[in-house]
Amino acid sequence: MNESIVISLGGSVISGDPIDADYMKSFARILEASKYRRVGIVTGGGRTARSYISVLRKLNVNENVLDEIGIYATRMNALSMASLIPGSNPTIPFTVEDAVNLMNTYRFVVMGGTEPGHTTDTVAALLCERSATRTLINVTSVDGVYDMDPHRFANAKRFDRIGYREAIALSTKSSAGAGPNVFMDITALTIAMRSRIRVIVTSRDIDNLEKILKGDRAVSTFIDDDQRS
Amino acid sequence: MNESIVISLGGSVISGDPIDADYMKSFARILEASKYRRVGIVTGGGRTARSYISVLRKLNVNENVLDEIGIYATRMNALSMASLIPGSNPTIPFTVEDAVNLMNTYRFVVMGGTEPGHTTDTVAALLCERSATRTLINVTSVDGVYDMDPHRFANAKRFDRIGYREAIALSTKSSAGAGPNVFMDITALTIAMRSRIRVIVTSRDIDNLEKILKGDRAVSTFIDDDQRS
Amino acid sequence: MNESIVISLGGSVISGDPIDADYMKSFARILEASKYRRVGIVTGGGRTARSYISVLRKLNVNENVLDEIGIYATRMNALSMASLIPGSNPTIPFTVEDAVNLMNTYRFVVMGGTEPGHTTDTVAALLCERSATRTLINVTSVDGVYDMDPHRFANAKRFDRIGYREAIALSTKSSAGAGPNVFMDITALTIAMRSRIRVIVTSRDIDNLEKILKGDRAVSTFIDDDQRS
Amino acid sequence: MNESIVISLGGSVISGDPIDADYMKSFARILEASKYRRVGIVTGGGRTARSYISVLRKLNVNENVLDEIGIYATRMNALSMASLIPGSNPTIPFTVEDAVNLMNTYRFVVMGGTEPGHTTDTVAALLCERSATRTLINVTSVDGVYDMDPHRFANAKRFDRIGYREAIALSTKSSAGAGPNVFMDITALTIAMRSRIRVIVTSRDIDNLEKILKGDRAVSTFIDDDQRS
Amino acid sequence: MNESIVISLGGSVISGDPIDADYMKSFARILEASKYRRVGIVTGGGRTARSYISVLRKLNVNENVLDEIGIYATRMNALSMASLIPGSNPTIPFTVEDAVNLMNTYRFVVMGGTEPGHTTDTVAALLCERSATRTLINVTSVDGVYDMDPHRFANAKRFDRIGYREAIALSTKSSAGAGPNVFMDITALTIAMRSRIRVIVTSRDIDNLEKILKGDRAVSTFIDDDQRS
Amino acid sequence: MNESIVISLGGSVISGDPIDADYMKSFARILEASKYRRVGIVTGGGRTARSYISVLRKLNVNENVLDEIGIYATRMNALSMASLIPGSNPTIPFTVEDAVNLMNTYRFVVMGGTEPGHTTDTVAALLCERSATRTLINVTSVDGVYDMDPHRFANAKRFDRIGYREAIALSTKSSAGAGPNVFMDITALTIAMRSRIRVIVTSRDIDNLEKILKGDRAVSTFIDDDQRS
Repeated sequence: MNESIVISLGGSVISGDPIDADYMKSFARILEASKYRRVGIVTGGGRTARSYISVLRKLNVNENVLDEIGIYATRMNALSMASLIPGSNPTIPFTVEDAVNLMNTYRFVVMGGTEPGHTTDTVAALLCERSATRTLINVTSVDGVYDMDPHRFANAKRFDRIGYREAIALSTKSSAGAGPNVFMDITALTIAMRSRIRVIVTSRDIDNLEKILKGDRAVSTFIDDDQRS
Repeated sequence: MNESIVISLGGSVISGDPIDADYMKSFARILEASKYRRVGIVTGGGRTARSYISVLRKLNVNENVLDEIGIYATRMNALSMASLIPGSNPTIPFTVEDAVNLMNTYRFVVMGGTEPGHTTDTVAALLCERSATRTLINVTSVDGVYDMDPHRFANAKRFDRIGYREAIALSTKSSAGAGPNVFMDITALTIAMRSRIRVIVTSRDIDNLEKILKGDRAVSTFIDDDQRS
Repeated sequence: MNESIVISLGGSVISGDPIDADYMKSFARILEASKYRRVGIVTGGGRTARSYISVLRKLNVNENVLDEIGIYATRMNALSMASLIPGSNPTIPFTVEDAVNLMNTYRFVVMGGTEPGHTTDTVAALLCERSATRTLINVTSVDGVYDMDPHRFANAKRFDRIGYREAIALSTKSSAGAGPNVFMDITALTIAMRSRIRVIVTSRDIDNLEKILKGDRAVSTFIDDDQRS
Repeated sequence: MNESIVISLGGSVISGDPIDADYMKSFARILEASKYRRVGIVTGGGRTARSYISVLRKLNVNENVLDEIGIYATRMNALSMASLIPGSNPTIPFTVEDAVNLMNTYRFVVMGGTEPGHTTDTVAALLCERSATRTLINVTSVDGVYDMDPHRFANAKRFDRIGYREAIALSTKSSAGAGPNVFMDITALTIAMRSRIRVIVTSRDIDNLEKILKGDRAVSTFIDDDQRS
Repeated sequence: MNESIVISLGGSVISGDPIDADYMKSFARILEASKYRRVGIVTGGGRTARSYISVLRKLNVNENVLDEIGIYATRMNALSMASLIPGSNPTIPFTVEDAVNLMNTYRFVVMGGTEPGHTTDTVAALLCERSATRTLINVTSVDGVYDMDPHRFANAKRFDRIGYREAIALSTKSSAGAGPNVFMDITALTIAMRSRIRVIVTSRDIDNLEKILKGDRAVSTFIDDDQRS
Repeated sequence: MNESIVISLGGSVISGDPIDADYMKSFARILEASKYRRVGIVTGGGRTARSYISVLRKLNVNENVLDEIGIYATRMNALSMASLIPGSNPTIPFTVEDAVNLMNTYRFVVMGGTEPGHTTDTVAALLCERSATRTLINVTSVDGVYDMDPHRFANAKRFDRIGYREAIALSTKSSAGAGPNVFMDITALTIAMRSRIRVIVTSRDIDNLEKILKGDRAVSTFIDDDQRS
C-alpha cells in the first residue's frame, strides 16, 4: 500500500501554449526516479480548456457541454503527459475503475476527467480511494493551505498541517468568497476525509516536489485526520 | 423546453422489501397522464443499497466500492421502475450522456447512479442540465425546505421558495450538523444554480405529486434564482 | 492448467440479509490459503434477486427483464465477494471473455451473470471452458447428486461419482418434476460434458470445502466422463 | 404488440457458397411487403461456421472458442442480410438488449449470436421475449414438428400444433437420439413457454413463408400453450 | 437519398484562438436553413491539434500518439460545433458506424476523427459512403482544385469539374511535392471513386457555401465520374 | 524494443477451405520458438472475405458494408490463429490501442482489421508504430519487392533493399496499373516511413520465415530509410 501514490496535476501547473512540455518532462523524470511502484496521475484542463470554454460560454453553450469539452482537454493533457513517461498506459482510461485496473499492468497510469460535475481533483481523490492508496499529492497554483488568501494578505500564514474538517471549512469559505485561494474542492476533500487519505497540497516547483516524493521536508500543507494533530 | 421534466426519486421514497412496487406503479400512472413529452427519472438506492453497505462497512470494505455497490442498487431500482412504465427505455444507461441520447427515442428514460462520488440527486441535476430541461423535481423524505429540522422543531417553517445561495447555505449546515434535514446535496444545488434549473423539493405523496406535475398549487419548496424573489 | 479452478457459488449459499458476509469472508480465507494460482468465482443472485423478482412478477413484469434484474443482483454479490478478497478484480466483468482476460492479471476473478437465459452455473461452466480450466466446483444447496430428492426420501443415496449423461438425465427429471433436487442445470452440464470438465457438487460447509480445495476426501459428488467409472 | 414479429433464420436455410444471397433477397422482399412494423431477424452461422469449426476442431481448439468463431459467422450473415433490407440497422448489435433498443429506430433489426452457450434459436427467443413480441417464426431445415424423424420414417406425422411441454419432450428425445429431427433447442423452447410466445416452425420455402406472414394457412407447426389445444 | 449531405469542415477553416465560434455559428445557421434532412459534419483539428503536435513532436513523441492527440482535438471541435447547432447529437460518436446510427435520430450529426492513420477528410468520405449519401462537400483552405499551386502560380487555373482519377493524380503530385495545394487526400478520393460520391471542393466563404447548399452556381470544383465529363 | 515484432499475415497466405490450419499451426510453432518477447500478428480476410464480397457486390451492396464484412472475416481468421498459439490473447481486440494494451499482458497478440478504409497491412503498420516496434514483417503473395511484375516478366528483379519513397512510387504504380504486383499499400508504407519502421516483405514459406525471425539471410526485401543505402 505504502508503495502507491496518486497525484493531481492542476491544469494551471502544466499550461503553456498549449502545454509546458518541458515541465511535464521534468515531472516525468522525478517520478521515474521515485520509490513508488504504482503511480496514478490526474491532469487538469489548463489553457486549452479555458480557451474553449471562454469562447463558447459567450454563445450561451450549455454548461454541462462546457464541462465535457473541458474533460476532452484534460484527456489531451493526460495523453500528452503519458507520452512523455516510459512505462505508462498507452491509452487514457475514461473511468476511475478502468484506471485502477490499468494500475495492475502499468507502473504509471495517467488519466484526465471522467464526467461533467467532477473536477480532476475529485477524480484524483476517487482514484486514490478506489486503488487503496493512502496519499494524494495535489500540485496546484498555491504552495499550501493558508488561513487567508496569500495573494491579497501579506500576513497570510501557511499551515504545516490541518485537519479535514478545517480544510473543508476553509474551502467552503473560499468558494463562496472572491479570492482564488481554493486549494482543493469540497467534494475531493470529503472523499479524502471519509477514506482517511492524506492530502499534500503543494506547488509546481520541481525541486520541492522531488523532496515530497522522497518524504523529505518541503514547502506544502498536509491535510489529514483531525484527531492526529 | 417546457415539455421536459427530470425527477429525482429518492431511495427512501421507493423502498419496501425491497421496493414498494405499488407506489412505483402509481407513480408511473401519474407520469403517463402528465403533459410532459420527455421525462427523465433518476432512482436512488434505498433499502437494498443500505443493507449491503451496512453489512460490508463493518468488514472495512473500501468506501469507493461501497459507493459502487450502492450504484448497482440504484440501477436495479431503475430497471424495476422502467419495467413498470410502458414506453420507457428497455436498458438502463450508465452515463448521463447516454441517457440524454435515449431521451430522443423514449418518452420516459429511467436511470440510476453513474459513478462513485455522485449522489443520484447530482445525477438528476446533471441529466436536467445536459438535456436542457428547466425543472427538476426532487421527491425526497421531506416535503420541502425548512429553516430548521422539522422532525426536531415543532416551529420549523417550510419555505414556499428560496434562492439557490440560501439553499446551499442550509444544505451545508445540515450536512455538517446532526440532523437528517438534508433536502438535496450541495453539488446538485450548485449545478442547478449555474444552469438556472428550478428545483421543486417535495415528498412522495402521489396526489401532491400529481398537482405538481399539473402545475397546481401543492406542498413543496421552489428553489430558484435569488434575484427573482 | 492444473493450477486453475472455477467455483460457482450458489445464491442460496451466500444469502443473508442481504448477504452472509461472514461466510463470504471465511470462503475468501480458504481460497487465499489454497494452492490455486487462477481462481474464477461466479456468484448467484440469492435473496436480493428473489425478493425483487417476487415483487415484480406479481405486476406481470417481462420475464426477460426479471432475469436481468436478477443478473444485477448477482453482480452486487460478485462485487461484495470481490471486496472481501485481497488480490481480486476491482470491477466486475460483464462477459466470460472479459473475465478470462482478467484472469491473466488477477489471481482471483469474481463475476456474476452475463445475460438473460443463462444461469450463473452455466456462466461458471463457460468460464471454466474458455479459461481451459479442468475442474468446476458447484457450491449449492445440496451436498451432492442424489438418486432421489434427499429432502423427501430418507433412503436417497448420494453418488460418489456419476457420468455426464446420467447427471443430465437426473437434472432433466428434476427440472420437470416437483422436487428441489436440482444440483445443476442441463445447459451447464452439457458444456461440462463437451469439454470434459470435472464438476464437483458440494454444499457450503467451509471445512468440507477446504478439504475439496486440498484434494482431500470430502462430502461431494464428482461428475465426469462416463467411460471412466 | 400484434405488429411485431421475430424470425430465426437457420444457418442451413441461408447457406450457399458461402451464402444464398438470392434467397436472402427474396426473403427481404416478402418482409418488406408484410404488415409487421417491427421485425427482428436472427441469422444462424451456416456453411461458414461449419467449415471453420470442422477444420479447427481437428486441431483440438477449445470448444468455447469454436462457439465464438461460429458467432462471428452468424454476424457476417446478419450484416449480409441487413445489407439486403432497406431500412434495417446499419451495424449488428452484439446483445439482445441493444437489438431491442434498435427496434425503436429501425423497422428491421438483424442480429446474429451473442455469446458462447446460446444457439441463435435461443437468441431469437430472448429477443422475442425482451421486445414483448408474441410470435416467433423458426425457419429451419424441417417444415414443422414431427412425431418421428421424417427423413427416416415414411409414416412420420407433422403436428399442426403442439403444446410447449410436448415440444420440449420431443426436442429432448431428438437431442439425445441419433436423428436430425431437432426443430428447436430446449432452452429456446423453455423461454417460449415461460413467456407464452407462440412459435411457428416452418421451412425456407418462400411462398409458404409469405402465407405465414399474412396469417394464411401454410405448412408449419404451431407451438403454444398446452391448455389451448 | 437526395436529402442527405456530408460536409468535411477542415481544421484550418474553423481555427481561431482556439476556434472561430462566430464562423461556426454562421455555418450552423445556413445548415439549419438548408433543404437537407440528414447532415453529417466532420470537423478537423485546426489550431489545437497543431499546437499540441508541434510542442510534442520536438520531444520525439510517437507519431501514432500524436495522431491520437490530434483526434482528441477534432472531437473538441466537433462537440463545440454540435453545441452550436440545435437538433444535433449531444455526444460525439467515435466511429463512422455509430455516427450513421445517430443519423437516424438527429438531423445533424457532428463527429471528429476516428483512429490514427485516417484524416478527417477520409472519415467524411467513409461517413458519406456508409450512410449512402451521394455528395460530400469538402470545405478547405483552397476554393477548389487547381492545375498548379494557386499560391505560387498566378496563372493557376481552377477546374469546374474533374474526374476521380485525375484528382487522385493531382493529389499524389501535391503530396509528394512542396506545395500546400492538397485539396483532399488520396484515401478519401479513392473511397469517393469506388462509391461514386460527388465531391465538391470549396472554401470557407459562407455566402458561397450557402449557394452550394442551395445547388446554385458557386466557386468550387466538382469531382466525379471520369466518364461523365 | 528490439524484442518486439509485428507480422502482417496476408489473407491469401492463410486461405484454405476456409483456412489452412496446418500452415497456421506451423506458423505458430516458429513464432513460439523465436526470440521475440512481444509479437503482434494481424491477419487478412482471405477466402472467406472474398467469397462474401463477391456474392454481395453483385447485388450492389454498399462498398463500406462490404469492407466491414471483410473485417469480420479477418477477425474470424485472427481468432482461429489465436486459438492455435498458446499464450495468446483469448479475445480479438477491435482497435490498435486495445491491441497495444494486450501486448503488455500476452506474449502473442493477434488481431484482424479495425474499420472500413484500412487494409490489414495498414493496421499492422499502425500496431507496429503505436507499440514502438521497429520491424514489420509483411507475409504476402510475393516473396519481395520487384522492379516489374514477376508473374509477367521473366527478367523481373527482386530488390534486397529499397528506400521508403521508392517503395511508395512502386506501390502507386502497381495500384494504378494492371498487375498484381502490390506488395503493400501506400498508406501502410507512408506510416512505416514516418516512423522509420523497417518493413520486410516476404512469402509464406515457413523455412524462409524461420530464417527471417532468426535474423538469418533469407528471400525477402527490406524497405527502410532512403538515406541508409
